[in-house]
Amino acid sequence: MRDLAERVKAGDRRALARAITLVESTRPDHRAEAARLLAMLGTRDGPLRVGLSGTPGVGKSSFIERLGMMLADRGLKLAVLAVDPSSSRSGGSILGDKTRMGELSRHPNVFIRPSPSQQALGGVGRRTRETILVAEAWGADVILVETVGVGQSETMVADMTDVFVLLLAPAGGDELQGVKRGIMERADLILVNKADGELRATAERTRADYAGALRLLRRRGDEPPGFPKALAVSALTGDGLERAWEAIETLDRWRRENSVHAMQRRDQALAWFREAIERELMARLKSAPGAAATEARLAEAVAAGRITPDAAAEKLVHDLFPDPEPAG
Amino acid sequence: MRDLAERVKAGDRRALARAITLVESTRPDHRAEAARLLAMLGTRDGPLRVGLSGTPGVGKSSFIERLGMMLADRGLKLAVLAVDPSSSRSGGSILGDKTRMGELSRHPNVFIRPSPSQQALGGVGRRTRETILVAEAWGADVILVETVGVGQSETMVADMTDVFVLLLAPAGGDELQGVKRGIMERADLILVNKADGELRATAERTRADYAGALRLLRRRGDEPPGFPKALAVSALTGDGLERAWEAIETLDRWRRENSVHAMQRRDQALAWFREAIERELMARLKSAPGAAATEARLAEAVAAGRITPDAAAEKLVHDLFPDPEPAG
Repeated sequence: MRDLAERVKAGDRRALARAITLVESTRPDHRAEAARLLAMLGTRDGPLRVGLSGTPGVGKSSFIERLGMMLADRGLKLAVLAVDPSSSRSGGSILGDKTRMGELSRHPNVFIRPSPSQQALGGVGRRTRETILVAEAWGADVILVETVGVGQSETMVADMTDVFVLLLAPAGGDELQGVKRGIMERADLILVNKADGELRATAERTRADYAGALRLLRRRGDEPPGFPKALAVSALTGDGLERAWEAIETLDRWRRENSVHAMQRRDQALAWFREAIERELMARLKSAPGAAATEARLAEAVAAGRITPDAAAEKLVHDLFPDPEPAG
Repeated sequence: MRDLAERVKAGDRRALARAITLVESTRPDHRAEAARLLAMLGTRDGPLRVGLSGTPGVGKSSFIERLGMMLADRGLKLAVLAVDPSSSRSGGSILGDKTRMGELSRHPNVFIRPSPSQQALGGVGRRTRETILVAEAWGADVILVETVGVGQSETMVADMTDVFVLLLAPAGGDELQGVKRGIMERADLILVNKADGELRATAERTRADYAGALRLLRRRGDEPPGFPKALAVSALTGDGLERAWEAIETLDRWRRENSVHAMQRRDQALAWFREAIERELMARLKSAPGAAATEARLAEAVAAGRITPDAAAEKLVHDLFPDPEPAG
């Protein structure tokens, strides 16, 4: 285990892949080993974690390939990770098909990891957060966490990254209903892709529409003036990619200089801790004898309006989890 | 208790006030009595629960007064409840000052209840949900749950009502950053108030801006075409109030006819049940001997990056909550 940790820290890509496989495993003995490995790897504060969300058809794989090559050619080490609970289904994560990012995946500075398949979202979240730590120990300067935005995955990605980017396609008029409600609030940067050829003007109009919508939202106070920002880019020609990356770096620098970065990381860790406590408690409750039957019966009564949800919850927890104080 | 329930159901306002006071109490014996009372009161599916959010200055009290009088004069029975965790501070809930809704509060069809003060948001949520049930047993046809939108209170109100309305003030250009990010997704109806006199044109422009922003959001599928909608109203002249109420009723009718209403209510009850289970479990954890100290120590280690949040949570729950299976 110590040897594996040392090799990861020395920048060994095969050791990195092995360490991630260990972290992804759900076997209890592997979980214990993974915890020891993570403790040995430690943490680095330098790397920039970028979340990227884009539905199928916006050109996300081309965008990642182009942006990734630009960064890798500048000498930056890059890890691309996917959070996608649906990757086992067809049309899931583009990273399942590495051949679409062939050039990028062969670059010595780059490590690409598809989403672990057929996993519950909670599990994907835990594993991705731990994979980020392993990739940073390996030496990654930039971690790109991508998602297709199914269900809660966008929020999950935003909750584990420093800067959150939304990639959109150009669209006109009534087609413009692409952004999941609630996700615009999380976007630091909206990029309208395909600003090339015939779609250039449409992309620019789409960008202006989203810039207008962003102005209607209250400022969060964790961004410098001018953010959140909407820009037009082309993964095909590369137009706008330098500006987009510059915006990401500007935002990250400002947040580091204004103590927002440290606070964000700390808040993310503590929020993750609280979530994990709830998950653990719920798992403990579910493992109590008779829990599933009691909960199902109470849920039915709640759905039918025969008992208020609070009374049902009090009853469930009280029946299954006797008071922690010794009874005698 | 049976007598109180009968009097509430007979439409007695003083009995209603007493029942709500009981439901608001946190004393364990009162909690038990409240549970019995709620069981006796039963539930009615007819009443329409409307959530209303508006920050100070948008004219919320005038709006409620005017809309409430319109409904009460039509013969509808109305209960106005406030969800406001900050009502104990100055500038909190407008309902703390009933004199500003003097005419409405004296109408025989109307019952107004300020937010219970100085309570944690979770407690306010539970009590407001139970107060809704009591007011419906009293005979309320419309329940208006209002909030100033501090912290999570807007989400909480949207989670307990059938139709969620956002009341905004007219604003131009850079002032337009009034909507908390993430709340636009919950709005079924955006009303821009003060569409009268000099502000009329500004209100109309603001309305058009928000209508445009709403078009950029993905449809949720739980609304008929044309929703979410943005309208201009004037609580001063009454202009637009009939149209606004018509929109609320149209949406509610469509949802009831298309099984959305029943599903919403059921989902709300089950989500509340799950939340309540988590709250109960957390309360049980916190009451375990040594829990606070252990959690604080682990949270510090998490914040400092010395342990991953998952490992810390596993440790906390395992240390404090021994396995439910008998150990021997």
